[in-house]
Amino acid sequence: MNFEFPLKELPAVMRGPRVERRRVLVGGSAYWGTIIEDGAEQGLLRLDDSRVVDPATVQHLPPVAPSKIIAVHISYSSRSFETRNQPKPTETPTYFTKPPTSINGHGCEILKPADSLYLNYEGEYAVVIGKTCRNVLPDEAWDYIEGFCPALDMGLQNYRDTDQGSMLRVKGADTLLPIGPGIVKGVNLFEQTLRTYRNGRVVQEAHIGDETIWGPHYVIADIARHITLLPGDVILMGTPCHSRSVDPGDVVECEITGLGRLTGTIVAIPAPRASALGVGHQPTDSPEVRRVAFGFDERVPARFKDNYVAAQKELKEKKT
Amino acid sequence: MNFEFPLKELPAVMRGPRVERRRVLVGGSAYWGTIIEDGAEQGLLRLDDSRVVDPATVQHLPPVAPSKIIAVHISYSSRSFETRNQPKPTETPTYFTKPPTSINGHGCEILKPADSLYLNYEGEYAVVIGKTCRNVLPDEAWDYIEGFCPALDMGLQNYRDTDQGSMLRVKGADTLLPIGPGIVKGVNLFEQTLRTYRNGRVVQEAHIGDETIWGPHYVIADIARHITLLPGDVILMGTPCHSRSVDPGDVVECEITGLGRLTGTIVAIPAPRASALGVGHQPTDSPEVRRVAFGFDERVPARFKDNYVAAQKELKEKKT
Amino acid sequence: MNFEFPLKELPAVMRGPRVERRRVLVGGSAYWGTIIEDGAEQGLLRLDDSRVVDPATVQHLPPVAPSKIIAVHISYSSRSFETRNQPKPTETPTYFTKPPTSINGHGCEILKPADSLYLNYEGEYAVVIGKTCRNVLPDEAWDYIEGFCPALDMGLQNYRDTDQGSMLRVKGADTLLPIGPGIVKGVNLFEQTLRTYRNGRVVQEAHIGDETIWGPHYVIADIARHITLLPGDVILMGTPCHSRSVDPGDVVECEITGLGRLTGTIVAIPAPRASALGVGHQPTDSPEVRRVAFGFDERVPARFKDNYVAAQKELKEKKT
Amino acid sequence: MNFEFPLKELPAVMRGPRVERRRVLVGGSAYWGTIIEDGAEQGLLRLDDSRVVDPATVQHLPPVAPSKIIAVHISYSSRSFETRNQPKPTETPTYFTKPPTSINGHGCEILKPADSLYLNYEGEYAVVIGKTCRNVLPDEAWDYIEGFCPALDMGLQNYRDTDQGSMLRVKGADTLLPIGPGIVKGVNLFEQTLRTYRNGRVVQEAHIGDETIWGPHYVIADIARHITLLPGDVILMGTPCHSRSVDPGDVVECEITGLGRLTGTIVAIPAPRASALGVGHQPTDSPEVRRVAFGFDERVPARFKDNYVAAQKELKEKKT
Repeated sequence: MNFEFPLKELPAVMRGPRVERRRVLVGGSAYWGTIIEDGAEQGLLRLDDSRVVDPATVQHLPPVAPSKIIAVHISYSSRSFETRNQPKPTETPTYFTKPPTSINGHGCEILKPADSLYLNYEGEYAVVIGKTCRNVLPDEAWDYIEGFCPALDMGLQNYRDTDQGSMLRVKGADTLLPIGPGIVKGVNLFEQTLRTYRNGRVVQEAHIGDETIWGPHYVIADIARHITLLPGDVILMGTPCHSRSVDPGDVVECEITGLGRLTGTIVAIPAPRASALGVGHQPTDSPEVRRVAFGFDERVPARFKDNYVAAQKELKEKKT
Repeated sequence: MNFEFPLKELPAVMRGPRVERRRVLVGGSAYWGTIIEDGAEQGLLRLDDSRVVDPATVQHLPPVAPSKIIAVHISYSSRSFETRNQPKPTETPTYFTKPPTSINGHGCEILKPADSLYLNYEGEYAVVIGKTCRNVLPDEAWDYIEGFCPALDMGLQNYRDTDQGSMLRVKGADTLLPIGPGIVKGVNLFEQTLRTYRNGRVVQEAHIGDETIWGPHYVIADIARHITLLPGDVILMGTPCHSRSVDPGDVVECEITGLGRLTGTIVAIPAPRASALGVGHQPTDSPEVRRVAFGFDERVPARFKDNYVAAQKELKEKKT
Repeated sequence: MNFEFPLKELPAVMRGPRVERRRVLVGGSAYWGTIIEDGAEQGLLRLDDSRVVDPATVQHLPPVAPSKIIAVHISYSSRSFETRNQPKPTETPTYFTKPPTSINGHGCEILKPADSLYLNYEGEYAVVIGKTCRNVLPDEAWDYIEGFCPALDMGLQNYRDTDQGSMLRVKGADTLLPIGPGIVKGVNLFEQTLRTYRNGRVVQEAHIGDETIWGPHYVIADIARHITLLPGDVILMGTPCHSRSVDPGDVVECEITGLGRLTGTIVAIPAPRASALGVGHQPTDSPEVRRVAFGFDERVPARFKDNYVAAQKELKEKKT
Repeated sequence: MNFEFPLKELPAVMRGPRVERRRVLVGGSAYWGTIIEDGAEQGLLRLDDSRVVDPATVQHLPPVAPSKIIAVHISYSSRSFETRNQPKPTETPTYFTKPPTSINGHGCEILKPADSLYLNYEGEYAVVIGKTCRNVLPDEAWDYIEGFCPALDMGLQNYRDTDQGSMLRVKGADTLLPIGPGIVKGVNLFEQTLRTYRNGRVVQEAHIGDETIWGPHYVIADIARHITLLPGDVILMGTPCHSRSVDPGDVVECEITGLGRLTGTIVAIPAPRASALGVGHQPTDSPEVRRVAFGFDERVPARFKDNYVAAQKELKEKKT
């Protein structure tokens, strides 16, 4: 990672104690709560009204309500190597956006329309902005971070051939941004490992400190050169190698040690009504679409492919 | 314009009576008001508290606060001809986004950082969504429109070489989306003419009904196939030919007959602090940047170029 | 009901066809949907993505996110008679507010802190504002209504002795405003009957057209004389006689024919931590508190009292 | 002030360095900026885009956009003595609310409808919440404060006879909550002095540390026992003695040393249209209304009355 890395001093948002805030639905009502970090109730969720619940038994809501979501295209060396055959994709980070309506919570559905062939996972960590931020330097940027979350930047790759690179329809559809389970601070992000799972098997893995090209401080300072970031805004920090397509019934997870494990299930929905009338770009299955949906197996560790295929096989057996 | 055009029946949002709502600052306080359509006070603004003010004498605020802003790349045949040498750019519309922090009001500043060479105007009409909208057909889409506004989709073209087509830094910077003066309904949009002015001279012009390729109903139905549009969301409907770069001191306006005339002034600001440290993509002046910033004069009516140059000359004389 | 009542003409928002919009959680993700009004799937919920679900099997979220909530103190003749021994409480309506954090959805928990003795139900109908509204006349006010919902204006009556009439702590606590299941338009509100249930037994009942003193048009025009109402704002229209206290385990419902049936369950939570330190007004059990919590049985139909007691008895038996 | 006062340790939000953030309109566009605290440009405002402007020359917007506003009825011993003839009004603080639509900025208009006789000033300090807050103890509450602002809690006292104590129409009308000029942290609030001015003459004055009965930590802990406070929420901390009515043309200011000086001008507007039809409670001039509008001169320092009358006299002379 460039730009003052390793950090001379760990920024406050990464120093302990660990604090994880979650937004959950208990008995049909929405509450904020804090994960209990030690003692007999460690790992349980203390609602703000003092009740303690097992977070495994409650529905989660997204812990953020951003006014904008900005995503780094490539920020992991393994992903750069896979897609571009070199360890750094571009001299400086590049970005796209997802609309706030794509936000989704832990334990969610991720929708795959009937006319779409490819829906790819991308496990990432998200940065949540805590204070209005514009025109800051990388060293100052840490002070504007509220915390970090696991995230899944899902993409309908059949729309890769349209939108001239903005990926609005690839990445912007409803439900395509599961995030959570909570917002975490007080954890040294650079010592954590990110893993994406398909049906319980690891299909992406990266040590964040070793493999990410740009840190969140750099990315915030870059974006805030021109764009004011507001409290609650979300920055998605890119995915490591082996983003691949998944099928209805698949359970996709992004786990980041220290942050938590985020789960979503792929669910089929009917094709949009207007698509039947021929309105808009129809899903395509071009070489470019397939290149992104399938990636380059020869440039990623073989175990990801093996796990991916094994998970797919199990899903098929389960369905039949 | 395709897809049931000419319309068999004018949709309610385009049928009279005309209603224009504005958000203004009077004596330092923000109010909503309605333009008076006839009688002795025609053209004045009746604040909701019954006071009547001359809208030319008050500061305007943006009449919208969208959760997302989606823009059509090209939707005018003249623009398609200029940039692609053919009357229709693609089979179906393509889109990019601007963040809500780019929103600006009538009578605003449009910021040009000191290290940016090219800041282009694009006069457009904007569609404001009135009701939550997902999975609708073009015929139904009209019911989800609140009204229409003039807009200026400004772009810092020096960032054209980065972001792989998303144009986040080209189109997303603070202040780059003046919109207003108000939201208008009850006007037949397809009978209106759009004009962009540089220092009072026409530099873009298009008859909306004759030249736009896709209507708002088609675009809404297209986007809402996958993305829920929320009340207040804004869709920018593309610009006609002759988008060009402007300089600090220039007054840029977008006038749409029946809707109103929107004004902004280009203002220089310092380069971002982080740019001096070399953070992020630095403004470039590549052939691709210049191609977009300068366009193709041979494919646009000569009077636009003449007016553009005359306006530029006057600005220089005024400065010296 | 006064002020042009019966209405000369039914306003558009009360004319058919009926439309009911709900916000639900399916598979952990939030969606908007519309109730199917006829045919084989009548009563089912069509999500905006075309899937059809049984609304009885999914979790509901609040269908509104108001910037403010204003409630009429008394707007039913039976309630006025109960509390003031006369058919009209005051010459003109009076109001209080509830904070947006009190909002709750259908099928929710309603929280009763351990140190509170009395938590009263009040079944009501809510009006949802659809357009920015200020300085309108009653006849015009109908155009600013988005729709209607059942609501439960719950109150912790032990805080009746503080706040000098604002009832912030009586009515403002988290979870004290269940609203839904959906927003409905196209129904003649004045022909509907409101019923509140405790554990399935009717404990409040009123024919809205016969018993309400002020219509929503009057109330909107009254408030909007000084206060701008924004889209999504909620007005609670008062409760009929026999508001009474309920206990943890009780299921409280507000049903309005034509609009739907809203359910909540009373749930005990610990007393606030600061209360143990003596911070703030402590719950009281004064004559005034008891007067409101228990009401005047001699001025309400006996069957309400009978049903209330029977429901209470069943709850106790169920608990033991 | 009770509850651990004097504080054993100054909370972080009151420790230096001082930071003041303002939201302003420059050239018609809205920006955030920070007051420069020392050096040659001390007192100027550095916009986030690096430009420096004189804050005296730019229009201010409200620095907050709260989801709710909660106000303490009485929290100053001088006000308690004036209105209740005793140094403490009640054992514990009591509260009312103002709707977010009442928010207004520095240098604003404060509207007085033509049918209202009395519009009273109340200079106060406001607390802005920085983090979601529920069920906290007073000692913990400091961590949830973003900063402090001067505020004017204006009231149309002619509506004192309605709303049964909630004061919705007294305190809730549009424009009745000027707040700003900015949000300040890093200042020891308890060492500051609050002054309200009518046309430049002091008409209220209080040393915050000496005269306030409850600190913000106590009030937050009290409210958050039942109500979740969200980032941006505003708490108004009460006014000292000598709230009095002002007239169109009067300039009212609230200055808090260390925080800034907030200005508003009283402006006449027509009576609401619906009032002419007799809709709603009409302004009254009862003994209770006059008691509050005029207060008790014999229980306040004579200089406030003298200054008030002198300022009134000057306004009349200026008008004639």
